[in-house]
Amino acid sequence: MTRLFNDPDDFAAESAAGFAAASARWVRPVNGGVVRSTRGAEPTVSVVIGGGSGHYPAFAGLVGPGLAHGAAMGNLFASPSAHQVHTVATAAHEGRGVLLSYGNYAGDVLHFTQAQERMRASGIDCRTVVVTDDISSAPAGEHEKRRGIAGDLVVFKVAGAAAEAGLDLDDVERLAALSNSRTRSLGVAFGGCTLPGADEPLFTVPEGRMAVGLGIHGEPGIDEIDVPTAAGLAELFVTSLLAEIPDGIDQEGARVVPILNGLGSVKYEELYVVYAEVDRLLAEAGLVVVSPEVGEFCTSFDMAGVSLTLLWLDDELEPLWHASCDTAAFRRGAVEGRIAVDAVEVVEEEVVIGPASDSSQRAAAVIDRALSAMAAMLDAEADELGRIDRIAGDGDHGIGMQRGSCAASAAASGVVADGAGARTTLQQAGDAWADKGGGTSGAIWGEMLVALGATLGDDDDVDTARVAAGITAMKDAVMSFGKATVGDKTMIDAIVPFADRLAELVDAGAELVDAWTDAAGTADAAAKATSDLTAKLGRARAHGDKSIGTPDPGAVSFALIARTVLDTLKGND
Amino acid sequence: MTRLFNDPDDFAAESAAGFAAASARWVRPVNGGVVRSTRGAEPTVSVVIGGGSGHYPAFAGLVGPGLAHGAAMGNLFASPSAHQVHTVATAAHEGRGVLLSYGNYAGDVLHFTQAQERMRASGIDCRTVVVTDDISSAPAGEHEKRRGIAGDLVVFKVAGAAAEAGLDLDDVERLAALSNSRTRSLGVAFGGCTLPGADEPLFTVPEGRMAVGLGIHGEPGIDEIDVPTAAGLAELFVTSLLAEIPDGIDQEGARVVPILNGLGSVKYEELYVVYAEVDRLLAEAGLVVVSPEVGEFCTSFDMAGVSLTLLWLDDELEPLWHASCDTAAFRRGAVEGRIAVDAVEVVEEEVVIGPASDSSQRAAAVIDRALSAMAAMLDAEADELGRIDRIAGDGDHGIGMQRGSCAASAAASGVVADGAGARTTLQQAGDAWADKGGGTSGAIWGEMLVALGATLGDDDDVDTARVAAGITAMKDAVMSFGKATVGDKTMIDAIVPFADRLAELVDAGAELVDAWTDAAGTADAAAKATSDLTAKLGRARAHGDKSIGTPDPGAVSFALIARTVLDTLKGND
Repeated sequence: MTRLFNDPDDFAAESAAGFAAASARWVRPVNGGVVRSTRGAEPTVSVVIGGGSGHYPAFAGLVGPGLAHGAAMGNLFASPSAHQVHTVATAAHEGRGVLLSYGNYAGDVLHFTQAQERMRASGIDCRTVVVTDDISSAPAGEHEKRRGIAGDLVVFKVAGAAAEAGLDLDDVERLAALSNSRTRSLGVAFGGCTLPGADEPLFTVPEGRMAVGLGIHGEPGIDEIDVPTAAGLAELFVTSLLAEIPDGIDQEGARVVPILNGLGSVKYEELYVVYAEVDRLLAEAGLVVVSPEVGEFCTSFDMAGVSLTLLWLDDELEPLWHASCDTAAFRRGAVEGRIAVDAVEVVEEEVVIGPASDSSQRAAAVIDRALSAMAAMLDAEADELGRIDRIAGDGDHGIGMQRGSCAASAAASGVVADGAGARTTLQQAGDAWADKGGGTSGAIWGEMLVALGATLGDDDDVDTARVAAGITAMKDAVMSFGKATVGDKTMIDAIVPFADRLAELVDAGAELVDAWTDAAGTADAAAKATSDLTAKLGRARAHGDKSIGTPDPGAVSFALIARTVLDTLKGND
Repeated sequence: MTRLFNDPDDFAAESAAGFAAASARWVRPVNGGVVRSTRGAEPTVSVVIGGGSGHYPAFAGLVGPGLAHGAAMGNLFASPSAHQVHTVATAAHEGRGVLLSYGNYAGDVLHFTQAQERMRASGIDCRTVVVTDDISSAPAGEHEKRRGIAGDLVVFKVAGAAAEAGLDLDDVERLAALSNSRTRSLGVAFGGCTLPGADEPLFTVPEGRMAVGLGIHGEPGIDEIDVPTAAGLAELFVTSLLAEIPDGIDQEGARVVPILNGLGSVKYEELYVVYAEVDRLLAEAGLVVVSPEVGEFCTSFDMAGVSLTLLWLDDELEPLWHASCDTAAFRRGAVEGRIAVDAVEVVEEEVVIGPASDSSQRAAAVIDRALSAMAAMLDAEADELGRIDRIAGDGDHGIGMQRGSCAASAAASGVVADGAGARTTLQQAGDAWADKGGGTSGAIWGEMLVALGATLGDDDDVDTARVAAGITAMKDAVMSFGKATVGDKTMIDAIVPFADRLAELVDAGAELVDAWTDAAGTADAAAKATSDLTAKLGRARAHGDKSIGTPDPGAVSFALIARTVLDTLKGND
């Protein structure tokens, strides 16, 4: 468990500050992460990586000459926001374009994709290679759905070495994608970490049992077996990975890099006992083992787990894997001729508050009160939302909503006091929610608030029809995010009937509070369906039944928020 | 806990083999450890380090250019034997002398000192610098009694850099000693590791509490307090270490290297949260922080603990700390111009079995049966001996005696079958016990068997008087080992009255079995006194009383062995 922290809410930020203080030889802090503190003689393509905190040395420990140029550092197990990724990528850019690379998780995909769009909008060539090495997370035919785990190191290292060699963005992207296509991993776990301030572990595995394919945030695995011997685990790893040799590779004489990765509390001596047998089995299978790595490369706090990654080399990848690099956590060979970069003062963009109509200012004041009430409610509900999320997901929904709404409320209060209108207030609140909340929920709620604000505007009269139109814009923002539709047991199940019902009643001439009261009932129904399914799922999982889908608690939190806003609206009636 | 192993008895050996297989870029295996797999253009002084297994990257992970030349790798938490240290040091020697360096633990001191004597006897200049950085393990005036913990890294790094710079053995020894005199550490723990195959953790700390100064093998600490915040722990570390600034250093403007070391399951993000405050406090105290290290440098499997080390630099030490090095676990800067060394086949010395008298051969057969019975008895008693040892010591007595006696029995059987006499049989058995048993008990029992064998000889008649003389020689071997005397609650309390009584009765004409029966009673009495004191100590410790000394279970195991041998002697009456 995590024992050492101050305020758990500040954990990721304080950890990032400590990392930067200890690692000035390699990095300097920027808003949302770190970038290199040195540069080479010639500009190169910039490789920008990132993800949630809790996986050190992924991601900040892999920034330095020959590896990544910058790392966006999200909150605990939560994606950095698009704003943070964009800030880090901009600071890391040397004029030759940016490759974004990160593990394939929904929140990260959302935020990095948004950041990529912002980079491109400002004229910077930006590409993405998502890491998908975990063979347990989707079948062989659906590689693009797989999660990224310790294979991160391979893809980042190859991309960083390609950039260091002076290749252009086309080649860096191509080689990173090539390395991902030739990298496979499988992980096992004996027990989960306990996040700072949390009351219970992220997950547990029964004593004497081992979960196969369990993810680094506790995502459900594919099997559970008795804890094998070290040799038995090595055999499970090697057999599973050799069943999935990438296309076009002849096993006999193939050159592979094994990476045996400890997730946290499975320690070095144990890893080496397992490695002894991995090495023997690979040789027995006719493979040539090339510069193996045994250690901690992608962790999950003190999670008791291990993974084995195989990188299937070819003539292009092998020299890139061997190339020199120098980072806080991963070094190889000799890196010379680096020039120190002066630490750059991190300047927060100044908020410009333009003129606003009286009506919009009054609406902003209501929004401010509503956000404050939402933050208080979500603070109280955070544990319960986290509990629901843990049944099917990574358990970060409660803490993400809590942090995001708290930051949004603070940001709104700051600008409302200076006379901001509804658009400006919601823009600031939305960016703050995405930055601090992190994860998928942070991205979605951030965009929802921004969409609502864009509809309400700073100059116009905010009447009932405009509010209903704003809620419809929020719904559209959610729908554009992912591929989920009504019935997939996500927030969409709640917001679609809510927005549609509200628009319908307002259209028919209803007052806002009356229409909202009615619409909130539809959201409640969706939330109840999700809760019921989650409870059923919890029971089914306990009995080994995996036939039920994976609801997320987004509908539950949406319904709670709709009720809280209704209370605020009633107070302003 | 340690979950992944095959046969727990083979754990350390298999881990060492896996390490060597994964780390051929840096090391090659030799009997008892590893030495570098490369050499520089010019020979240098050789720095040979080592200790028990379970502390990775200490010790084998620190072998490579610019750091150590070789590491002797003992069993779990048990010193390598003198024979192993000697083998590693001989393989590492490049013709310019050897510096031995290791943490200050009784077993390591015994074995490395014996190895040093053997090196010197073969004409190789050999010196020793023992690491004594743990301020909690003895008062400020008794530095030489302190244990070595993460300060190991400092002393090894400075010695390795001095050797790499081409300095002679005088200077390498002087600089290593200088770095030790300017290094201070303090550790804390929340819970202990569980060794492979063990039923319970090495130690526990009550939930919500933190042991201050607890050692890396579970040696008792100096205080127990509520778990502080990360900032509170940083303050405890910094305040304690600044209360002990080495002589002659002016605090204001002093240059220090902080090394924040995780013992196993306190992970990187937590360490960085603590480091953020350590960094701030050191700066606030007027110190200049120089290239800090945050990570895992001296672990104890998955022990939940942290230590902070401060190295107080001076003009000689600073460039040595910064100098390049390249090892499996610790790298810095650029190391070039290395030449690969061909893997050397490890050749075990061949055992020469000379002629032996019939009487000595018959005695050897009895010895063989006695050792076999001892091994069976110690196998059964290992858990109980370990439990007793854990109350005052590091808990390795049971496992050490079990392994040592098993190896000794096997070695004896091997040569007795080929007609060896008593001297040859006991020489082989003693070396095997020291090699495989490890620790203080391994060293002592190894020397005891060799001493007995030297007295019995291969050619002479083995009569009752000679056996009694042999037991006296065993007693003398024990006495010459350490500074303990009768009454210190060690094995000496049992063997001295046993040997004296046996000699007295045999001198008076008693038969061996009768004399042995009587003498065994005196050993039983000593064992009972130790057991009683240990039980009392356990109760007193539970009540916070630290006034009782620290008995070791040596008297208990001696008495058990005396009874077992008596049974064998009776069977041969």
